[in-house]
Amino acid sequence: MRAMNTNVTIGVYGLGRFGSFWARELVKHGFRVIGYGRSAQHAPEGVILGTEDEVLATDVLFFCVSISAFSQVLESTSSRITPSTLVMDTCSVKIYPAKLMKQKLSPLVNCIATHPMFGPDSGKFSTEGLPMVLCPVNCSQELFQEWVEEFSKWKLHVLQMSCEQHDREAAWSQGITHFVGRTLSELSLGETQLATTGYRTLMSIVEQTCNDPLQLFYDLQRYNPYAKQMRMGLKGALDTVMQALKDQEKVQ
Amino acid sequence: MRAMNTNVTIGVYGLGRFGSFWARELVKHGFRVIGYGRSAQHAPEGVILGTEDEVLATDVLFFCVSISAFSQVLESTSSRITPSTLVMDTCSVKIYPAKLMKQKLSPLVNCIATHPMFGPDSGKFSTEGLPMVLCPVNCSQELFQEWVEEFSKWKLHVLQMSCEQHDREAAWSQGITHFVGRTLSELSLGETQLATTGYRTLMSIVEQTCNDPLQLFYDLQRYNPYAKQMRMGLKGALDTVMQALKDQEKVQ
Repeated sequence: MRAMNTNVTIGVYGLGRFGSFWARELVKHGFRVIGYGRSAQHAPEGVILGTEDEVLATDVLFFCVSISAFSQVLESTSSRITPSTLVMDTCSVKIYPAKLMKQKLSPLVNCIATHPMFGPDSGKFSTEGLPMVLCPVNCSQELFQEWVEEFSKWKLHVLQMSCEQHDREAAWSQGITHFVGRTLSELSLGETQLATTGYRTLMSIVEQTCNDPLQLFYDLQRYNPYAKQMRMGLKGALDTVMQALKDQEKVQ
Repeated sequence: MRAMNTNVTIGVYGLGRFGSFWARELVKHGFRVIGYGRSAQHAPEGVILGTEDEVLATDVLFFCVSISAFSQVLESTSSRITPSTLVMDTCSVKIYPAKLMKQKLSPLVNCIATHPMFGPDSGKFSTEGLPMVLCPVNCSQELFQEWVEEFSKWKLHVLQMSCEQHDREAAWSQGITHFVGRTLSELSLGETQLATTGYRTLMSIVEQTCNDPLQLFYDLQRYNPYAKQMRMGLKGALDTVMQALKDQEKVQ
């Protein structure tokens, strides 16, 4: 196992809720981290606040921008990214950003599509055992393995898979969870003394999904090509249960 | 505080999943318990298996039958229940069984409508702090308070309320949880390596609701007069979120 050279400087482009969290995680694991955010006033703890150009010139550059912003961001930055920088995105869908990186980055620039499947809520106390997906896009096997090993050292559950497989499975796990969370949130369900254990669990779904920006929800649903099928499936299941109740009433 | 006379014999009518659990809970708290189940071959641990007549002649009689069976069961047993027996139902809705008890039991028979809002899953390790609803139906304030105190001694979270309030709040807590659980269960969502913390929570909703008999689900939805409104609300919320996604796509 090759040890990661922690003298590399890592750039985090985008210091929103996730980017700030991710930059701190990188600092925790011994990296020098420069962060840039369009409207960032101060850097997260341990992170150096840099200019856009400084971040684009780092050895390893993580884009932590919303899925829907990624196209424009790459458009305006790719000419300044040189082959000495390894680029990784952290979007919650993978087919779409991987395609953008292939289109907009020079073929000489190495890139890996990643999805850290946790954030400031689920990774608040520890990220141990949480899933970290890595999909090769344009990168040598050796460099790819280096990052598999690095994230494994963080005790993340590193999963190597195609962007295709990621999006298909994520639609039916993360995607459906966010959809159910947002739907329940619409109902503004409140505290009740009658809360069963199951109801408390249901309420925690809302907390676990609606703390994230609404934009993430829209993007997850819109840019994952399998999300529509999932939503139709969920609606169909609801109709099936409604119909079963009606049939049951007829019988009795 | 009057101490409950634990020399009283308690009858548990119905030894299904919940009845067996409830009978064992009563035994744990020092009562002599006689159980009767139409097709029960053996009694739960510490419970005496009795005949139907023996159970109907106990000092305190808990009906642990499905909501949809309660009418017929009361019909066929009420003539054998004397004023020396206090009757309590344990149904997951309250307006309907309370009405049945008022209709079918002699006005001289004391009765209380109860809903222990836990069961063999949620109460597996401990029932401490779990909600126990008591609604007065036909019973002296003194006798009612005796049972409030008894269940408080069990460290249950005892809630005194009207059947009306129970059903209204339960539709939007227990009812919606079971509805979401059954809907998700229709989709046969499986294990995935991509499971986020939120997805694991979502999956636990299915476990927490679909272990219960399907009949309980149907009955909860059918016999709670507020359940239909809840289901329509849930369907409406889903449509709202679907529409918001469509609007969002138009904007961008």
